[in-house]
Amino acid sequence: MHQPIDHQDALKLGGDLYRFAGELYPICRSITGDGTRRTLEMIGGHIPLQLFEIPTGTPVFDWTIPREWNIRDAYVKSVTGERIIDFKKCNLHVLNYSTPVHEKLSLSELRPHLFTIPEKPDWIPYRTSYYREDWGFCISHNQLQALDEGPYEVCIDSSLTDGYLSYGECYLPGNTQDEVLISCHVCHPSLANDNLSGIAVATFLAKSLASVPRRYSYRFVFVPGTIGAIAWLARNRDAAQRVRHGLVLTCLGDGGRFHYKRSRRGNAEVDRSAAVVLRDLGEASEIIEFSPYGYDERQYCSPGFNLPVGCLMRSVWGTFPEYHTSADDLSFIGPVQLADSLRVCASIVDILEKNHHYRNMNPFCEPQLGRRNLYRSTGGKAVGEEINARLWVLNFSDGEHSILDIAEKSGIAFSEVRAAAELLQESGLLSLIAERD
Amino acid sequence: MHQPIDHQDALKLGGDLYRFAGELYPICRSITGDGTRRTLEMIGGHIPLQLFEIPTGTPVFDWTIPREWNIRDAYVKSVTGERIIDFKKCNLHVLNYSTPVHEKLSLSELRPHLFTIPEKPDWIPYRTSYYREDWGFCISHNQLQALDEGPYEVCIDSSLTDGYLSYGECYLPGNTQDEVLISCHVCHPSLANDNLSGIAVATFLAKSLASVPRRYSYRFVFVPGTIGAIAWLARNRDAAQRVRHGLVLTCLGDGGRFHYKRSRRGNAEVDRSAAVVLRDLGEASEIIEFSPYGYDERQYCSPGFNLPVGCLMRSVWGTFPEYHTSADDLSFIGPVQLADSLRVCASIVDILEKNHHYRNMNPFCEPQLGRRNLYRSTGGKAVGEEINARLWVLNFSDGEHSILDIAEKSGIAFSEVRAAAELLQESGLLSLIAERD
Amino acid sequence: MHQPIDHQDALKLGGDLYRFAGELYPICRSITGDGTRRTLEMIGGHIPLQLFEIPTGTPVFDWTIPREWNIRDAYVKSVTGERIIDFKKCNLHVLNYSTPVHEKLSLSELRPHLFTIPEKPDWIPYRTSYYREDWGFCISHNQLQALDEGPYEVCIDSSLTDGYLSYGECYLPGNTQDEVLISCHVCHPSLANDNLSGIAVATFLAKSLASVPRRYSYRFVFVPGTIGAIAWLARNRDAAQRVRHGLVLTCLGDGGRFHYKRSRRGNAEVDRSAAVVLRDLGEASEIIEFSPYGYDERQYCSPGFNLPVGCLMRSVWGTFPEYHTSADDLSFIGPVQLADSLRVCASIVDILEKNHHYRNMNPFCEPQLGRRNLYRSTGGKAVGEEINARLWVLNFSDGEHSILDIAEKSGIAFSEVRAAAELLQESGLLSLIAERD
Repeated sequence: MHQPIDHQDALKLGGDLYRFAGELYPICRSITGDGTRRTLEMIGGHIPLQLFEIPTGTPVFDWTIPREWNIRDAYVKSVTGERIIDFKKCNLHVLNYSTPVHEKLSLSELRPHLFTIPEKPDWIPYRTSYYREDWGFCISHNQLQALDEGPYEVCIDSSLTDGYLSYGECYLPGNTQDEVLISCHVCHPSLANDNLSGIAVATFLAKSLASVPRRYSYRFVFVPGTIGAIAWLARNRDAAQRVRHGLVLTCLGDGGRFHYKRSRRGNAEVDRSAAVVLRDLGEASEIIEFSPYGYDERQYCSPGFNLPVGCLMRSVWGTFPEYHTSADDLSFIGPVQLADSLRVCASIVDILEKNHHYRNMNPFCEPQLGRRNLYRSTGGKAVGEEINARLWVLNFSDGEHSILDIAEKSGIAFSEVRAAAELLQESGLLSLIAERD
Repeated sequence: MHQPIDHQDALKLGGDLYRFAGELYPICRSITGDGTRRTLEMIGGHIPLQLFEIPTGTPVFDWTIPREWNIRDAYVKSVTGERIIDFKKCNLHVLNYSTPVHEKLSLSELRPHLFTIPEKPDWIPYRTSYYREDWGFCISHNQLQALDEGPYEVCIDSSLTDGYLSYGECYLPGNTQDEVLISCHVCHPSLANDNLSGIAVATFLAKSLASVPRRYSYRFVFVPGTIGAIAWLARNRDAAQRVRHGLVLTCLGDGGRFHYKRSRRGNAEVDRSAAVVLRDLGEASEIIEFSPYGYDERQYCSPGFNLPVGCLMRSVWGTFPEYHTSADDLSFIGPVQLADSLRVCASIVDILEKNHHYRNMNPFCEPQLGRRNLYRSTGGKAVGEEINARLWVLNFSDGEHSILDIAEKSGIAFSEVRAAAELLQESGLLSLIAERD
Repeated sequence: MHQPIDHQDALKLGGDLYRFAGELYPICRSITGDGTRRTLEMIGGHIPLQLFEIPTGTPVFDWTIPREWNIRDAYVKSVTGERIIDFKKCNLHVLNYSTPVHEKLSLSELRPHLFTIPEKPDWIPYRTSYYREDWGFCISHNQLQALDEGPYEVCIDSSLTDGYLSYGECYLPGNTQDEVLISCHVCHPSLANDNLSGIAVATFLAKSLASVPRRYSYRFVFVPGTIGAIAWLARNRDAAQRVRHGLVLTCLGDGGRFHYKRSRRGNAEVDRSAAVVLRDLGEASEIIEFSPYGYDERQYCSPGFNLPVGCLMRSVWGTFPEYHTSADDLSFIGPVQLADSLRVCASIVDILEKNHHYRNMNPFCEPQLGRRNLYRSTGGKAVGEEINARLWVLNFSDGEHSILDIAEKSGIAFSEVRAAAELLQESGLLSLIAERD
């Protein structure tokens, strides 16, 4: 994985990622229930995934695992018996976690249970009511305005009963017990960018890491948003203490530029690695300071944990109009974007894996690179970037600076700095310093 | 006081402030003498003010209290007996601290004693000679150019005799002995912005603080510039050690934007509070680094004291043409500006009073705000600023960050952050950390 | 020296500097050999210079002193016997360190030994092959393109034999054994800006410093680039430990603006002094961060030494087209530029010499400057820069801030800050704090 993905592989990989997102798309997920269970099962088709089930009522910090929600069908029928709103056509039509209902209602009675987006009259919003019992339908604003007085037959064939919250974990042991945590949420129904893109990228990142030697142990967690991450943390306080680096993955399939949101620590190694990867990408991208609102980094970065976990996105939630609407569908994401996102994740992981401290064995003056064929032979012109990288690595391999530090200081791509360090190590000019902690 | 002043109150307050400045305007103040004594008496009409009198000759650090200066009349008469320069018309006409004189002089003999502003030929300059015995008249440049050869009868009916330097103090005890020092100079004669605006704002700030509970004790000092502040410091080294925060108030009545000059420490709590108040104001304003030239912060921030005392101004002394001229009159200041300045001072004090450290009682993951009605109930849309402020306060109430820190970090107005903290404290989610020092 | 150089002196000095560069110009220097020896001898005509000779084969850290190279003649003759390439006309024609050769060659045999600059077809490049045995000629690209098939008589009458590497040192003892190191390379043949400008400025700086009292001891080293600096460091580890400040001087004669490249430490006193000098200059100039590529600061700033040595230049090597070509001739440098460069060097040295910590003897409030005639006597107008400098010096002479710190903080020219400090010391208001280390 830590090798650059070539163009052909990227195309193939993009196709695989996109296909997987497409397979997951129709499922009606929520924070509990069979849709989420089915999703985890499909992830388990790609990577070794352990399924965890936490019973309703289990306390997890300040929260309690809610009742399990399942839904079979839902509709609103007009007087002519036509299903004018139909869950089977789009699972966003149902307010997620709606309690069961079967009644005949006039429009004015139904109206408080209908959600629309007046500014985007063709789109269906995505709304939830996990912790307050309610029921409702989400429809396009145009449809709302065309509704007559009714009456309507309103049916939500759902159940809200004692059951379980499900999540999945893929653990890949490495040379140390120090862990890299990769987390994504699996609770959104048919939404492509905000959910499926993260799931697909995380799954394929795990797949590729599974087959290579690993410095760190990796733990991929596929959890329902908020309550799932809280449940995981409540049950894994030991594992949490071993997290050296972490990433929340989401919104990685759209056409926007990359955004990396720093961890609460602000300058953790993962923050610096992500910043260097985005810098080396040579495309516009943005680094966002930590804030306590967003995805599950909210939980990982709560003050009691304060884990070094950042969040990688393309477009930022809430800033693109398709966010949490039916327009965040499979046409909103693309294979090339997914493959590029996977490449960026792999590059961040690559820095974490390869960021070592080396010691210059000839710290007094430069060593003579020429006689080792590590310099140009005819003097007079400026040296190229390759030789420059060697000089940087030699000068700053004083025990204090890691090669990530050197990539930051020099402005040279991490891959070039690492290559220089490895070459100099082979030449006996550098020695690897054993990990400190 | 710590409540926002509403618009009606602001209008009324502005009127009161402006009226008070107007009452003080005609008095001929100096660093000693009856004009300053009368000024302190009038301040004492609004707030409890203790008057201090320090005898001539008293050593105060490197300085000595000078002789007391009083003036009854001064004029220059033409050969026809007409008072062509008349102290009674404008007290700026006399070089402040002029020694007595009564002579008949030709223009060429008089000329070295005349001060003008050639670039502003209609304005009378304000000049002083406190520490070198001299006499003189300040006149418009146009008048100077129209003078004939004379001779002139020149009279300054002043006295420079052993007496006292006067200053006033208003002390408002609070819950702690730690003090907030508010200082303004009271030595300028008929100058509105540079002197009276500061006196008016300080007086009304004291008035409003007198009637509310106070965390800190407040000491308002009304002192002659330089020598008065030095005298106060020389006599109050104990009180100076209790100063936790301080502000010098001056030039607060003109139409310019706010300027806050940092204390010598550069990042004292008062510096940060003032910066957040000006940021939250949503108007253009400027933060100026400390420099050892200016008003009495020069003394409070001398290296032996190095008190956390900044200086709040609108237009900065020396940068507006009216500075130290007859054009700094009552038309140069306005009631709305004075009221706004008072509001800014009150907001700074408000932060100092309310800036606490809280501890998140549920530091592991977010507490469930929803079941406490502190969150929106239907999920799917981004949360509003109110909820965002709660998340910021919870996340950073780790014992290390005060709510001022959180207001700085989040960019959320201090008032919103404070409201969130108080609400979360009421809900039992935060507990107030007792003061550390 | 520490006095500003007046305009007339500057003109004379510029002439002297330029004349010296002109005298050195024709000599064929290299990293060893008689050309460099002759250069050192000529420097020794201006300043006391000790010559050091290190035998071929001597190990210096990772390097070995190479064989000594000398050259008497070199040419390429056409079939008609004409010297179409002639070392005697321009010593850049020979690849520096060429092994001897005398052969008859066709153009195609000769071609791999010819170096040109296609983008600058009239100019002759400067190329070297110190550490790989080779021979070659450098010619204009136009000449290359006009060459017929030959054959050519090719002759390089050079020798590469056991001998010595030569360098020179001028040591000027000061009040302390702490040293200021001034280093320039002496290995380039007929190149004016990149070599001779540095030699001339360093020589005249030493000359002027020789005749004044010195706080620091000064060591001027005139060394062949890279190997010479490495040899000097290998033989002078004690002296290196005494280096408190240092400068590499190069490219100081062209018309470009000043560039100062920071030492590896980044904020050494010499770095800050150079930055203040360039700031006070009031011309465009640039501060460059350290990088491990450049001149002999590469060696002085290698991690084992990490000396506080920066590099002063006008145009930066590699960024001007004349760099390392025949166009870097005497017309590329000028007397005024050389004199200005010397003035900048002298100003940096001046700060190092005069940067002291003072203690304000009246730290509580301002001392009364007026009664010491250190203030204006008539109050009312803003004070001038002179008095402002006094206030800054008094306020920050708290034992923590040197006058360089104060010049940085206040934005006031170092010369004004120093003058204020000296005046205040004479007045008994400041006392000099003895050096700490």
